[in-house]
Amino acid sequence: MVEDLKIQAQKAKKAAQQLATTSTQKKNDFLTVLAQCLEEEQSRIESENQKDVKIAVENHMKPGFIDRLILNKKRIQGMADGLRQVAILSDPVGEVISGWKRPNGLVVTKVRVPLGVLAIIYEARPNVTIDSIGLGIKSGNALILRGSSSTLNSNRFLTHLARESLRQCSLPEDSVQLIESTSHDDIAQLLAMREYIDVAIPRGGAGLIQNVVIHSQVPVIETGVGNCHVYVDKDADLGMAEKIVVNAKTQRPSVCNAAETLLIHQDIARVFLPQIVTTLKQAGVEIRGCEQACQILPDLISATEEDWKTEYLDLILAVKVVKNLNEAIEHINTYGTRHSESIITENYTNARDFLDKIDAAAVYVNASTRFTDGEQFGLGAEIGISTQKLHARGPMGLQELTTTKYIIYGTGQIRQS
Amino acid sequence: MVEDLKIQAQKAKKAAQQLATTSTQKKNDFLTVLAQCLEEEQSRIESENQKDVKIAVENHMKPGFIDRLILNKKRIQGMADGLRQVAILSDPVGEVISGWKRPNGLVVTKVRVPLGVLAIIYEARPNVTIDSIGLGIKSGNALILRGSSSTLNSNRFLTHLARESLRQCSLPEDSVQLIESTSHDDIAQLLAMREYIDVAIPRGGAGLIQNVVIHSQVPVIETGVGNCHVYVDKDADLGMAEKIVVNAKTQRPSVCNAAETLLIHQDIARVFLPQIVTTLKQAGVEIRGCEQACQILPDLISATEEDWKTEYLDLILAVKVVKNLNEAIEHINTYGTRHSESIITENYTNARDFLDKIDAAAVYVNASTRFTDGEQFGLGAEIGISTQKLHARGPMGLQELTTTKYIIYGTGQIRQS
Repeated sequence: MVEDLKIQAQKAKKAAQQLATTSTQKKNDFLTVLAQCLEEEQSRIESENQKDVKIAVENHMKPGFIDRLILNKKRIQGMADGLRQVAILSDPVGEVISGWKRPNGLVVTKVRVPLGVLAIIYEARPNVTIDSIGLGIKSGNALILRGSSSTLNSNRFLTHLARESLRQCSLPEDSVQLIESTSHDDIAQLLAMREYIDVAIPRGGAGLIQNVVIHSQVPVIETGVGNCHVYVDKDADLGMAEKIVVNAKTQRPSVCNAAETLLIHQDIARVFLPQIVTTLKQAGVEIRGCEQACQILPDLISATEEDWKTEYLDLILAVKVVKNLNEAIEHINTYGTRHSESIITENYTNARDFLDKIDAAAVYVNASTRFTDGEQFGLGAEIGISTQKLHARGPMGLQELTTTKYIIYGTGQIRQS
Repeated sequence: MVEDLKIQAQKAKKAAQQLATTSTQKKNDFLTVLAQCLEEEQSRIESENQKDVKIAVENHMKPGFIDRLILNKKRIQGMADGLRQVAILSDPVGEVISGWKRPNGLVVTKVRVPLGVLAIIYEARPNVTIDSIGLGIKSGNALILRGSSSTLNSNRFLTHLARESLRQCSLPEDSVQLIESTSHDDIAQLLAMREYIDVAIPRGGAGLIQNVVIHSQVPVIETGVGNCHVYVDKDADLGMAEKIVVNAKTQRPSVCNAAETLLIHQDIARVFLPQIVTTLKQAGVEIRGCEQACQILPDLISATEEDWKTEYLDLILAVKVVKNLNEAIEHINTYGTRHSESIITENYTNARDFLDKIDAAAVYVNASTRFTDGEQFGLGAEIGISTQKLHARGPMGLQELTTTKYIIYGTGQIRQS
């Protein structure tokens, strides 16, 4: 098995070398061909997917799990549309980012090139297979996909279609490979192959990500956990604050850019807290308040230390009254996961302070944290939201799937000292 | 001991938060104060350093090791000058890299910010202590330094001076901390503290780097191993080729951007090989040839498979005759360490091919590989040469010690879908 994996990785590296110099047109052709292929093979995709769904039902998986697993006509169309959107995006490969001439006549240029081989490790969402293939191939990278065993039938057929489409476009079919084994040892092996794999990208829950980050010898781009805050300053427009808090918490509570804790300046807490709690409760949100919040509204559930650390991904909101902006900043920098943080204020200096001092991928004034997203930022499709600081931070689009190389044009220069 | 390390890391994180919003002027003042301090304390630095040198001599360390360990007047002046040069470089922090307005009115900007806390793990070169402090503080980062036990006296005194200078400039002295323990467990502990350490940068030989890369849970920037090649094409200007090969091999053989293998197109091998071997031998270089090279010059030592993989860092050069450009590219992409590679040719298409297909941090036409260096590229001082693809590739200057954050200015926007 380990030997198989090594062979797969070697093939991927070889494919990556060819992809690196493939024209934009050819990569776009592939995306279009695959999109059409998904549409044409819709019923077959559904029937392969049903095998996975059947097993999940037999194994008594939760409804949410099964929902994420299902591929229906609408979702298959969504995947095809996604590929066509990626085809429209501009190709990052080959961009000359900067360049200059040195006094000795050397012309130094910094050029964008693909990363090489991406290992994508993900959970039971078969749409991630197609999303990753679209963004990966467009940015000139080969992919080794390791999905969940619960989606093996779906993933096997989807990657089969991708490989067929690659062949049809005269691109190396080993640009897309699925690890079919479902042994956990394989992940460890994959994450040790520094010689062949350039980057590992885990896509899924906190447990999966943590596991990859801790065990990988290959460089990792960490995506996703979001313990996000909205801070309502004393100088906030409270009507705006209410709309933003409700949106950040309830518009889609299960995603990483949803808010998990609301911080309220003490000077406005007596006015704003009852108002927002009423609105949130009507929207079905459970509130867990700090001591001071519970004094204002005695029927609130008391928050514990654990609440400040929790990414609920659910209709639950922790609420803390803070004595000033600094306490809000301190709280966020202590408990936040450096994802998305927002201040609601009309005070210019407080806004500046918050933007400067909060350590996060995305920091907002007077807007919902829910906007942290490649599409919403205008970057096009994204492969995830990086919460680490190396290489990529925030929504990762095509550009974040590239690296650079220096190309230097000489006329016989040698170094003197 | 582990507890101490955690406390150091926490202090570093706190200092980093303060440094992140420190003005350029204040950071430059610190660099200038420290430079002057090094000059004033020169004799004390030398006497502390002599303690380390004495131990190294008693332990019968090699002359090269002791040479790198020694701080004399000239080297101390070099460190002070280096700090003043960094003070002149422009501050990368705060740069607005890009920005745009979305249809909904959100203004999205991408801004350069410090990485946070850097852990620098290095060997017995005390000048690395001051270099790292200069670049680290200028880019707004706090540093945890873990040098070799063989330089403990030197490093202790140098970091003491840095902390004194920080205090004098009203900057947090915990921005610079030395791990004085010389237990290897400490490195493992340090590399597990994801909560406090943002990046680990190993600086030293291949063994140290490999060890950090494999064991770190903290993201690592890998620096340095260079198995670099010069390929002399059939259409090369052989006079130029000779100068470049000699320079790349002999100008400073102990560094990572020196050439280790020479590849020669078979059509010119009978002319060029005897010529270059004569010149190189006069320069004291030992040549190890492939079978074909040994046929042309029967008194050459035979190269083995191992030679193609070796970074000699010495006056030794492996030579291989290749049948065409593709074989040269294939050889380099197989055995190279993705550092610096050069083609010598007058043929435009071959030059383009080589530049496109070689996978390395720096790819040259008609120039010596020795130019891969922050100073030579015009980036100013460097903290190392990255041979990985994530985050930074090639010489890493101040900019590579930063990350970005998105700052988003809203007017009450909430997300609709």
